[in-house]
This record gives sequence, structure tokens and C-alpha cells, in this order.
Amino acid sequence: MRKKFEKYSHKIVQKIRFRIPDVPGALGRLAMEIGKCNAILGDITTIDITSNYVIRDITLFFDSKEHYARTLSMLMKLKGYKILSVEDEILSLHKGGKIAVTPRVNISTLSDLRMIYTPGVAQVCSHILKHPSSARDYTSIGNTICIATNGSAVLGLGDIGVLPAMPVMEGKSIILNKMANVSCIPLLIDSDQADVIVNTLYHLSKTFGAIMIEDIKAPLCFEVEDRLQKMVQIPVFHDDQHGTATVILAALIKALRLTRRNKRSVRIVINGAGAAAIATCKMLLNYGFKDIVMCDRAGTIYEGRRGGMNPYKEDISRLTNKRMEKGPLTQVIKGKDIFIGLSFPGLVTADMVKTMNKKPVVFALANPVPEIWPKDALDAGAAIALDGRTINNALAFPGIIRGALDARVSTIDYAMKFGAAETLASLAGKHDVVPNFMNMNVHEKVAEAVRQIGLNRLDKGQNAD
Amino acid sequence: MRKKFEKYSHKIVQKIRFRIPDVPGALGRLAMEIGKCNAILGDITTIDITSNYVIRDITLFFDSKEHYARTLSMLMKLKGYKILSVEDEILSLHKGGKIAVTPRVNISTLSDLRMIYTPGVAQVCSHILKHPSSARDYTSIGNTICIATNGSAVLGLGDIGVLPAMPVMEGKSIILNKMANVSCIPLLIDSDQADVIVNTLYHLSKTFGAIMIEDIKAPLCFEVEDRLQKMVQIPVFHDDQHGTATVILAALIKALRLTRRNKRSVRIVINGAGAAAIATCKMLLNYGFKDIVMCDRAGTIYEGRRGGMNPYKEDISRLTNKRMEKGPLTQVIKGKDIFIGLSFPGLVTADMVKTMNKKPVVFALANPVPEIWPKDALDAGAAIALDGRTINNALAFPGIIRGALDARVSTIDYAMKFGAAETLASLAGKHDVVPNFMNMNVHEKVAEAVRQIGLNRLDKGQNAD
Repeated sequence: MRKKFEKYSHKIVQKIRFRIPDVPGALGRLAMEIGKCNAILGDITTIDITSNYVIRDITLFFDSKEHYARTLSMLMKLKGYKILSVEDEILSLHKGGKIAVTPRVNISTLSDLRMIYTPGVAQVCSHILKHPSSARDYTSIGNTICIATNGSAVLGLGDIGVLPAMPVMEGKSIILNKMANVSCIPLLIDSDQADVIVNTLYHLSKTFGAIMIEDIKAPLCFEVEDRLQKMVQIPVFHDDQHGTATVILAALIKALRLTRRNKRSVRIVINGAGAAAIATCKMLLNYGFKDIVMCDRAGTIYEGRRGGMNPYKEDISRLTNKRMEKGPLTQVIKGKDIFIGLSFPGLVTADMVKTMNKKPVVFALANPVPEIWPKDALDAGAAIALDGRTINNALAFPGIIRGALDARVSTIDYAMKFGAAETLASLAGKHDVVPNFMNMNVHEKVAEAVRQIGLNRLDKGQNAD
Repeated sequence: MRKKFEKYSHKIVQKIRFRIPDVPGALGRLAMEIGKCNAILGDITTIDITSNYVIRDITLFFDSKEHYARTLSMLMKLKGYKILSVEDEILSLHKGGKIAVTPRVNISTLSDLRMIYTPGVAQVCSHILKHPSSARDYTSIGNTICIATNGSAVLGLGDIGVLPAMPVMEGKSIILNKMANVSCIPLLIDSDQADVIVNTLYHLSKTFGAIMIEDIKAPLCFEVEDRLQKMVQIPVFHDDQHGTATVILAALIKALRLTRRNKRSVRIVINGAGAAAIATCKMLLNYGFKDIVMCDRAGTIYEGRRGGMNPYKEDISRLTNKRMEKGPLTQVIKGKDIFIGLSFPGLVTADMVKTMNKKPVVFALANPVPEIWPKDALDAGAAIALDGRTINNALAFPGIIRGALDARVSTIDYAMKFGAAETLASLAGKHDVVPNFMNMNVHEKVAEAVRQIGLNRLDKGQNAD
């Protein structure tokens, strides 16, 4: 029963070219055998048809390399079928990189060239020299952001360094372009020093309309964001924190509505005390949630706790856990209405869910394997249970960045993030807590909400929280 | 007679929408009137045809804003014709910026997304973690360069700062993409400190396959290039220096062939002592030219000269001017075979050309108005006379960068630049000194020559000059 929920966590993807007998049922039999191996079928493409055979490329998803190897050797033994080639589907998809810097204007003649380059371009340079703010109109600056990382907290992989982080940055760049028409430049800053990261981005900041930082470990990410935002005139946005927090808020708003709860009385436990967890906790408090307890490896965070603390957890200790609850997650989850996991796979059991308040809400967001599979949480009585495939920060950041660029604000404040969250909650299907990421309309609506809030703020002469 | 040569220096371009009577000869008459005003006609597009009129957009080139205003008021008086609108053609072309960061892969389904982003992307990250050099294969790094400027020496405009420099950087990015399929990211570094520029680029250097610096004033550009190249594992290329020098060398190689001269005996005067002039002088010396005198505002540069010197001119003084010639350009140009101007408009007169050796070669490369218009130099007896429209660094840098990326070298040495220059010279038409920039084949051939020389060098275990 669990397979359906697990399939998207399959990490190994291979495109296998089969020679299949051209008789009715042959493809069906192959698909059955693949199913017996617990591999998941992706796309099937017909490559060639000969008199006796059909050549097809079949994309298969596997749990692990071992699973792939085991399945392959099984399939090789199938009588009548032949494996012609195997291609690492994901690696070949990434070959040559996933993004390019391309012209938005045509140059097919020397005359075109003399307009976009010397001598004609001097006219644009002179115009911007006289009217500096028009650089946003006549260059790519107004539509371009960077996404900077030092590769110290990448996905579930951790501190892997800048080069291995690049495919993730490019993925994010594509999402921004596809969903919000933003140009996003990945920047690899090979340093774990806040000074270096902050200064590098500060000196480049005129190049961009906003700066995203990404996959930088806590607490370094907090320091970089806080210091840089004070130095530059454009928004600094750490998606791991604020994008995640915004989508969680959106899901919570809708989950409260579906389970008829109230933000002022609902009891929340957040497990994890990294960048996303701390940002989520703060955003929920700012939005009006009152009763939150945060847990890390050492148990609950409370005022005066010794050991395993840092300035950011100290902050949290003063703002949350008013009842001074102590102990591990297994204790503190009891009686809570809502569990938000931003921690590690498998930390929550069905029995733990059973100790929560009636019809609890479980957001198990560890990636790619959650604290508890949603199906197991639902079986244990959860009213709503979701993981990171549904509550995905890619729902929020494209629209937030688009809206901030369009409003030309210099910071992204809570009002804008709340606007994004409420828009997302309102666009979710009747029984869903968030809308579908692939729906372009969602990103447009989020952008429009954020833009309006930004413009209103500018009208009032405010430009910060 | 001069108009033909001057037309491309026209800086003001306007697209004017005319309502023209729909009778034979009406467009012709308008074109005649435009000609009388000395404005140059560009494209003519039919927008609409009504019963009595044709609406056309006509692009016109003007010398100056005054020329444009004068012409416009004349055209407004033309009976039967009506000007419906005027659009600044160049500004509108640059609207929204000229480049974008776009996906190279398709994402139209959630399944695509899960391959290019989490969870599938983790497979690529892990692969690069194990095989760091494969980052060049599976990310955009291998095909991406930055072009960094502080806006201190932009075209003929000077130290205008970073924002007004952006349109030029974007123009160069387009040329690199169009001619050599390179992704080029403009970076604005708002500082005149070598330390800041060097450190900013150093910390980002893993993002790129090469670093171009651009429009940074001398001598700052020398320091930045030298220091940065020692710190990073990828080529650092200052096109104002090396691109220009390469194209001048190409043109000289062919000009010597056409005028039956020899590099070891030919006498050269270079006017100007900025980045391009110094780089050109050094490259010519390295290529085997023997007799070069360089002039700046204070006259010839010679060993032991007092005043107006810097370490780079000191260098030049030791390498050139073995006869210790002294005096201004007007003196020192006498008897020379070749004049190379990288200085200011109008510094050379026809009379000065007449004092040169018989059938001299004149490269007057001040932009956009040369030291002497080629037509005037030819009338004064030059065998070959060209300006910056022909001897354009855009002939060299796309191929050089492409070749360097493909060979994955860590520096671009003289051998590679010589290879580019010789390739350009060999591709020039029978009576031309350089080939046509718009010929894509030229850039491919240059890239291939540079790549081969780079690969040979790597085979020999060398990786520097």
C-alpha cells in the first residue's frame, strides 16, 4: 500500500532501450515483469518498428543502485526480449547544463549589431547615465536575480561544496524562468566565511533586481541574509527559510479551515531547528499563531535551556513554549493539533501520531523521505497528512520574486509573504491545502498579490518590516 | 564623398511613423527629402494601408540630436505627409534588457520537474561530488563565462559607472552567444579598488569556465587581470587588450602580405598608451615585429623619459623605440610604414599621412570617430586605411573564448591568440585584411584553431605562457 506514496522518492532513473517482440501482449508482459521487480514505469517511447520487433525506450525509476542492478539482471533473463542500451536518464538530461544566457533581441545583420552594440548602444548608456533608475527599464537588471550558494546545505546531501550544488541552483533557475519569467543567475561562492559571502554579493548587487541565497547552512545563512539586506537596496531572500515558511503557512491556513481550528488556540509542535524551522516558527508567530513548541535533537527548546543553543534558538526560546514543556519529541507531540517536521526521515511513528489531539494535521517535510509517510499518518488518525512533494517551496518563491521585482521594492516583508500564503491557500482545491505547482495561474496570482502589497507599501513611504 | 564612411558613426536612431499619400512616387519623394536633410534611411516597414494613405515606419539615422530635431521639423512641414509618432528606436530595442537566462531543458510535467530538480537532481549532485571535473559536463559551468566591469572606461564615454555600462555588457553577451554559443553573464562590480574586483571574481570563479573583464580603465585593468589570473584555474581575458590586439595583429599580417612588407623590417608607430595600445605593442613584439615606437599625449615613449610614465609605460620604453626617437606624433610619424591609432578622434591629418613612407598602412581605431577617416588617408596615399568598424575586436573574442572553453585550458596564451590572428588573416577576402564579422564560419574557424593549440599545450603538460 505504501508504494504509491513512495514512488516519487525514487532517486535512480534509467532509460532502457528494449527490443520487444511485435506480438499482442508483449509490452504488457514486460511491464508486468518490471512491476514484479518493484520498479516504477515512466515514459514509453516507440523508437523503431521492424518486421518482428518493436524498439522502445522505457524510463524506469528505482529505489537505489542495488535495486536498479537487481532489476536489470532480472530483465536480461527475459526470453524474447533484449536490452539494447541503458542510458542514465537524469545525467543525460543534465548534460551541458540546464540553463543558458540567451539574446532577447535579434541580430542577423551588421545594422542590428550596430544598434545593440557600439556605436548605437552609447545612446542607451548616456540615457542611463542621466537617469540611473531607468537602468531597470533598459537593461536586464530589473528582471534578473542571482541565486548564490556556498554548497554547505544542499537538499538532503549536506555540505557537499559548490560544484555539486550547481545542478540544484540551475534547477531553481529554470523554475523561476518557467513559472515567473525571471532570469536567475546561479553564483557559486566558494567560502564558509560570512564576510566573504556578504562582501562578494554586496559588490555585485547593482547587477540584480534581487538576491536569493540558497542551500547555505544555519546559522551562517541567517548572518549572511541579515547583514547583506542592511547593505543593499534590493531584496535579499533566503528561500530555504522564507519560501518554505510561506508554503507551510499557506498549507496551515487551509488546514485550519478544513479542520475548523483557530490560529489563536491551535497547539503546534515543530521538529527541527534549522533555517527552515526557525523561519517557519517566526512567521507563524508573526501571523498570529500563539502556541508553538520547537524541538531539536536535544528535545524541546525552552528559555534557559543549557546546551545545544545558539543566538537564533535563544530567540525562539523566548518567543515560544510558554508552558516550558521539556522532553523529547515522543513526549511533547502528545496532545498537539499540528506536527510540522523539518528534520530527518522516519522520526515519527504511527503510535506517536495516535498520541496527538484528535484528527491532527501532520506536515512531514524532511526530503526526500519524510518523518512519517503521509499514508501511515492518515492510517494512524491524522485528518490531513502531507510531505514535501505537496508542501513544496517552489509554490511560493517564483511568485514572490516576480512580485517583488515588479514592485521594485528593496525588501520582502512579512506582509508580502502573508499575501503570498493567503493567495496560495485560496487557490487550493476544495479538499487540498495547496494548489498544483504546475498551474501557471497560481504563480501569476501570487506575484500579483505580492506586487500589490509592495506597491501599497511604497505609496506609504515604507520599505521595510 | 565622406558620407559613406561616416554613416555608421551616426548615433541617433529614430523610428518615425509616417502617413504617406497612396500615390505613385510619394514614398520616393519623402526619401528624397530625408536625403536632403543628410539623414540616413534604415528599414522601411508597411504598417497599414487605407484607401488614401499608407502608414509606414521608417528608421532614420542622425549625426546628433540637433540634426534629428532639425530634420524632424523640416519633415513636419512636408505637405500631404504626416508624422504619426516617433519612437527612439535604440531605446525601445533595449527595453527590458537584451539578455535572459533561459532553460535548456523542457519542463512541462511534474515528472520533468522531479528530474531537473529534487529528488532526481541529487543523482547529478552525487555524481559531481565523486567526480568534480564532471561539473563541466553536467552543469552550465563549462559553457558559461562572466563579463565583469566597474564601468570606468566604457566605449568613448569614459568613467560612467556600472549601471550605464550594462547595455554594453549585454551587447557583448549577445555577440558571444550568437557567434560562439557561449553563455555570458554580465557582472557589475561597483568599485575602483583592485582588491575588491579581484576578490569578488576570485570567490565566484568556480561558477565559470572563463572570466572576461571589460571596460575597466588602465592601469587598474592590468593589475586586476594579472593578479586574478594567478589566483584562479580558468582563463582571465581582458578583451579591450587582447581581443583588440589579436584583431590588429590579424589585420597587420594580411596588410604586410598585401603590401609586400616584412614584420622584421617594417616601421610602426602606435599612438595611444592605454590598455589596448600597450597590449597591442606587446603582442606585436612577441609575434616578431622589431621596430615599434609608441606615442602618448607627451610624445614618444622612450627609456628614461620623465613625466607621464607608469610601470606599464616603463616596460614599453625598454622594449620599443631602440632609436630613442623623441617628439610629438606629427614628427615621429614621418617615414613610418604603419600607423596604429588607439587614441582620439581627428589626431591625424592628411598631411601627416603624406609624410609617412610610401604606400603606408593606416589603422585609425579611435571609436566611434577615428584619428583620420579612412577615405582621407587613402586620398593622402595610404595603401590600406581602416577604422574600428572593420578592425573590430568582436572578430576575435567569440572564437577565442569558445576555443578556450572547449580545450578547458586555465589560461589563454600568446600561441592561442596568434592562432586566432593567423586564422582571421587567412579568412580575409583577397583584397581585405580581415573577414566579415557576420560570417559564422569565421568564429568557428577561430575557435577550432584556439582549441587545437590549447589541447596541444595540455598534451605537453604546459598551461601558461
